[in-house]
Amino acid sequence: MTITVKALQKTGPEEPFRVTEIERRDVGPRDVLIDIRAAGICHSDIHTIRNEWGEAHFPLAVGHEIAGIVEAVGSEVSDHAVGDRVGVGCLVNSCGECTACTDGEEQDCTGGKGKKVGTYNSVDVDGSVTQGGYAQKVVVDDRFVLRIPDALDFDRAAPLLCAGITTYAPIARWGVGEGTKVAVLGLGGLGHMGVQIAAAKGADVTVLSRSLKKEETALKLGASRVLATTEEDFFRTHRGAFDFILNTISADIPLDKYLGLLRRRGVMAVVGLPPEKQPVGFGALISGGKVLTGSNIGGIRETQEMLDFCAEHGLGSWIEKIGVDDVDAAYDRVVEGDVLFRFVIDTSTFDSAEGAEKV
Amino acid sequence: MTITVKALQKTGPEEPFRVTEIERRDVGPRDVLIDIRAAGICHSDIHTIRNEWGEAHFPLAVGHEIAGIVEAVGSEVSDHAVGDRVGVGCLVNSCGECTACTDGEEQDCTGGKGKKVGTYNSVDVDGSVTQGGYAQKVVVDDRFVLRIPDALDFDRAAPLLCAGITTYAPIARWGVGEGTKVAVLGLGGLGHMGVQIAAAKGADVTVLSRSLKKEETALKLGASRVLATTEEDFFRTHRGAFDFILNTISADIPLDKYLGLLRRRGVMAVVGLPPEKQPVGFGALISGGKVLTGSNIGGIRETQEMLDFCAEHGLGSWIEKIGVDDVDAAYDRVVEGDVLFRFVIDTSTFDSAEGAEKV
Repeated sequence: MTITVKALQKTGPEEPFRVTEIERRDVGPRDVLIDIRAAGICHSDIHTIRNEWGEAHFPLAVGHEIAGIVEAVGSEVSDHAVGDRVGVGCLVNSCGECTACTDGEEQDCTGGKGKKVGTYNSVDVDGSVTQGGYAQKVVVDDRFVLRIPDALDFDRAAPLLCAGITTYAPIARWGVGEGTKVAVLGLGGLGHMGVQIAAAKGADVTVLSRSLKKEETALKLGASRVLATTEEDFFRTHRGAFDFILNTISADIPLDKYLGLLRRRGVMAVVGLPPEKQPVGFGALISGGKVLTGSNIGGIRETQEMLDFCAEHGLGSWIEKIGVDDVDAAYDRVVEGDVLFRFVIDTSTFDSAEGAEKV
Repeated sequence: MTITVKALQKTGPEEPFRVTEIERRDVGPRDVLIDIRAAGICHSDIHTIRNEWGEAHFPLAVGHEIAGIVEAVGSEVSDHAVGDRVGVGCLVNSCGECTACTDGEEQDCTGGKGKKVGTYNSVDVDGSVTQGGYAQKVVVDDRFVLRIPDALDFDRAAPLLCAGITTYAPIARWGVGEGTKVAVLGLGGLGHMGVQIAAAKGADVTVLSRSLKKEETALKLGASRVLATTEEDFFRTHRGAFDFILNTISADIPLDKYLGLLRRRGVMAVVGLPPEKQPVGFGALISGGKVLTGSNIGGIRETQEMLDFCAEHGLGSWIEKIGVDDVDAAYDRVVEGDVLFRFVIDTSTFDSAEGAEKV
């Protein structure tokens, strides 16, 4: 028996969001039914549902930054119990057998369709298309349910499930710690988490921005300074100044110049996805043995580690709370970079939403 | 009192090589005078003296793959003695004080002009322009003189000083060892050393080439196989097949496709310098957390380690020996890729060369 819940869906890339009714599968032996309290809006949601990353499967509810409370669990679930505070990120299943899965890197699962399952717009184990977190409830395999520590409120925790782990993983992997000189490029949904996490790791964090407009904000997030890349001779003055650059920008940047800001053996990790390929001069990599790498969210184990780390250090996303009726407008503001730093949908506003229908 | 020696110089990028006389500085307290027995021809020599990397300082003798015998040492030199078998690579001095130097990474010395000194076409400590190894003798600061083990003959050792260390350094740095699945792109001066070194480290080495023409050669060098990248569906068939790719190609390649050949967390190290920037799709780095990095020769300590490693494992460059009159023709053949794999100038042919003059 399926569970009927309200969701926020689009029927096409140009259509507005509408409150609809969708079916969640009945709670299987390994499933967890979650009553969603907060759903973050990630730029990926927008790219997907506007068909910017290929044809999406409509009608579609997106959302992969989900926080809520366990409402029911299957008979074989032992890690989660009714009433637990939990979260779900970008993944709701994986094959569990490939080396990526056994290494705890489920995001790189090679199981393929119906095995590696994204939280929305993905082929689920039963062949249906997954519907994301812009909804009242969701049913998820227990291995993909994270514990949200009590110290984190749902609204500030939800965006951690994507923006948090996306920035935490490369910071952890490349050993950012006490005294590491970190530059963060781009102070948006990803960047504002990168600054907080790197600073909490003990790094000396510099935000690089075109202007000093966001200086006060950056300092509050834990940055030691903001530098304007438009200042004269910027790239010469700061040559070799950083051990690690977290590049969250999904637009064209003069990559070689930024690589020049790295010290010998320094690392630039990219987590944003510019639509175009970026030209890199091999000389910029060869000289000083620089590293250019990318990072894609993170595995379930590391996502839990990130949540625990954020709780321990009092970190969370800076958010603006909106109702289900505000999402279309919020999307436009995200695209314009006009939010500090994440919109989170208050799912209690589904209760009063009108016009729910099956589509 | 300077030392007059014969050298092979050009007076301009279009001029032929001519045997000339040049002055080497008198042997200072920390200097070593080396009687050169073999001088390798590196593609960098050609780029430099043909002004392809900017205006060179003419008249110029190039050559930074030097092997010979110590003829004299300064009063303060204790590491080298008359009669020792020695080599000199791409560097003849560095500041000795920056962190690169103190870390043994002199190739990244930040001391600047007159401190970090290349073996040729570089401003020396006395303000003169350095003249390279296409000569009878050279005077070099003792810190930049390497010991050539007895097991290595001069001809096969000379190219190790550039091609050997250029490929050894990234192989060592990225932990290539027993069972590592290595792909080598490009089987030329660099690639043929990369194959030998990686195989000697215990790696399973695959040479990737457009055709199978060089198969027999590659297998002799220690490769386990050659794969033709032109075979149908090549990049799909071999997706994720390699832990490490040594990219020695200095021309445009479809970088993203090759990154797709790497396993999760795999590393591509580039050691060739294509004239144009190479477009990289960040998705190819993000998916699987791939690493794209570069490597620039290596420090003196590591160069010695490489020479010792090659001696221990019986490795050396495959060379074709030529006389001082053959260098112009050899250059054309290098550019055409028509040599297996390095030309080495037999410097004893200076003795019979005519027309030596001061230019």
